[in-house]
Amino acid sequence: MGKYDGLFARIKELARDIDGVILHLIPERDPRGLYEASRHYPLAGGKRVRPFVVLRATEAVGGDPGRALYPAASVEFIHNYSLVHDDIMDMDELRRGRPTVHKVWGVNMAILAGDLLFSKAFEAIARAEVSPEKKARILDVLVRTSNMLCEGQAMDIEFETREEVSVEEYLRMISGKTGALFDGSATIGAIVGTENEDYINALSRWGRNVGIAFQIWDDVLDLIADEEKLGKPVGSDIRKGKKTLIVSHFFDNASEEDKAEFLRVFGKYAGDAKGDALIHDEKVKEDVAKAITLLREYGSIDYASQYAKNLIREANEALKVLPRSGARKDLELLAEFLVEREF
Amino acid sequence: MGKYDGLFARIKELARDIDGVILHLIPERDPRGLYEASRHYPLAGGKRVRPFVVLRATEAVGGDPGRALYPAASVEFIHNYSLVHDDIMDMDELRRGRPTVHKVWGVNMAILAGDLLFSKAFEAIARAEVSPEKKARILDVLVRTSNMLCEGQAMDIEFETREEVSVEEYLRMISGKTGALFDGSATIGAIVGTENEDYINALSRWGRNVGIAFQIWDDVLDLIADEEKLGKPVGSDIRKGKKTLIVSHFFDNASEEDKAEFLRVFGKYAGDAKGDALIHDEKVKEDVAKAITLLREYGSIDYASQYAKNLIREANEALKVLPRSGARKDLELLAEFLVEREF
Repeated sequence: MGKYDGLFARIKELARDIDGVILHLIPERDPRGLYEASRHYPLAGGKRVRPFVVLRATEAVGGDPGRALYPAASVEFIHNYSLVHDDIMDMDELRRGRPTVHKVWGVNMAILAGDLLFSKAFEAIARAEVSPEKKARILDVLVRTSNMLCEGQAMDIEFETREEVSVEEYLRMISGKTGALFDGSATIGAIVGTENEDYINALSRWGRNVGIAFQIWDDVLDLIADEEKLGKPVGSDIRKGKKTLIVSHFFDNASEEDKAEFLRVFGKYAGDAKGDALIHDEKVKEDVAKAITLLREYGSIDYASQYAKNLIREANEALKVLPRSGARKDLELLAEFLVEREF
Repeated sequence: MGKYDGLFARIKELARDIDGVILHLIPERDPRGLYEASRHYPLAGGKRVRPFVVLRATEAVGGDPGRALYPAASVEFIHNYSLVHDDIMDMDELRRGRPTVHKVWGVNMAILAGDLLFSKAFEAIARAEVSPEKKARILDVLVRTSNMLCEGQAMDIEFETREEVSVEEYLRMISGKTGALFDGSATIGAIVGTENEDYINALSRWGRNVGIAFQIWDDVLDLIADEEKLGKPVGSDIRKGKKTLIVSHFFDNASEEDKAEFLRVFGKYAGDAKGDALIHDEKVKEDVAKAITLLREYGSIDYASQYAKNLIREANEALKVLPRSGARKDLELLAEFLVEREF
């Protein structure tokens, strides 16, 4: 992937600046437990993709990325708060190979740590070095983003109790759950750097499409990736019964007979730790492989893969209204990478 | 209580305006479950004391309370978000006689409903009809308030695992857990209405003291109230082992022997539903009465009661910097009522 080496180096470099701001806002202090729990994910060293989007969006519209540092930390706080609370809801025990916040500190402290991270997202906006007018507008965007995040997550919880989810419903859910925060990141970055509404709208559209494509590609990878590269067994979403665009497409198109066959496997091996205990069972492996074959036969995997790639094409198309620059190029590269990656 | 009849009528009247704003921000919409869960406490008809403080603070500094309606809704959203999350943490099953959010919609949806209410608090600020400068300053205050709320709650959780809590530690906890939001309410109201820093500081001090006194008086009532008026059995905090200012004062002053005797009862009857199932047990009643006698003998109940009344005196003293007005009078009356009430 030599094509992306420069991009990765720049993401890594900016992550250091972002981490400085984040840890400044959640220092080691009393009450000790609350702050340790709140620092757990931020310290685990995520890639800081969303803050990178904020900073590059500011630059791409001709602004000073230095003024976007606190807003960039803000979207990372939102991301981390939602990870902490989602992990409680999903009863996940591991994230990035480390125990989740509620596994270490208990559910009560995890709820509270998520709340503090949420509060810190708004503190980061309060501290941003932008005019009061821009601050008010950024607050607007962040509020819309966090409302949509809650709505997307609520839809996702509701989907668990249903047998079928339509393509349209899935797209609405994912538009909130992952589209909103990429949209918010790009939009906030643009607002910091410009008053040109065309630029701001272009970045908003770019972010929404990229966020949705990112999640769809994740779901595709779960079915087609090389297990070594992915770092987890193929088809775990099938075992857990996760409603994805792929599955929605299949339900919208499959014969009753094939649906029934798929449903004999789909979500039926959730088991312990969301099904991961069953990965070595040959019968389960065979069943999951059969289900994946069905999805492939109906073109559902191709459909989702193409859908994601089209979203990325549209996203980068929207950026053409901006002047050419290294920052714009980085956003385009990032978008392409997100639907080419193999892990 | 004829003295407070006018005050109650005015609180009730303003509550109607506030409720309009609150329900406008959390309408009946999709995802249905999320919005229903989020409306559960706001619709239960609290007194809206904190919004009342915001509106009266704006008026007391000479401002237009109409501009404070959204900020007033904001602090009520913060209050409600913390109730939803605290009820999960405390495993409480009832609030104001109705089942708690997590009892009706489950813990996952309750976490999410709390998150949405938190987000709505900031949305209310984003929509406030004040200048961008004031909005930025209100955001500052709200962020400080919500950080302190998390810190206070974290200390409270931590106290549960300890045998003793000093008076100083208790006051720090309660300063976050209930002082911060009253402080924030009065401060935000003042910021909406004035640029006079002396006025803003006076209302901040008033709110902090009133919030702390409010909670201390709650804890006193639990030990001395008429059960009929209180609507719950006397001494429930003793059975549950709740660390209050009264208990902290006792621990700071009692002999080792009396401490040991107190600890034989304190928190030993938590039982089901936090001890309320045990209220009819004569042995338990007797033990709790003995523990209360110990607290009385060391002057701990009087100490807390006086402490609360002194805070209220200081609070109202601070308001003397403001011009006399009906609004200032209402704040003074409210403060007095909070440490005279018998329920």
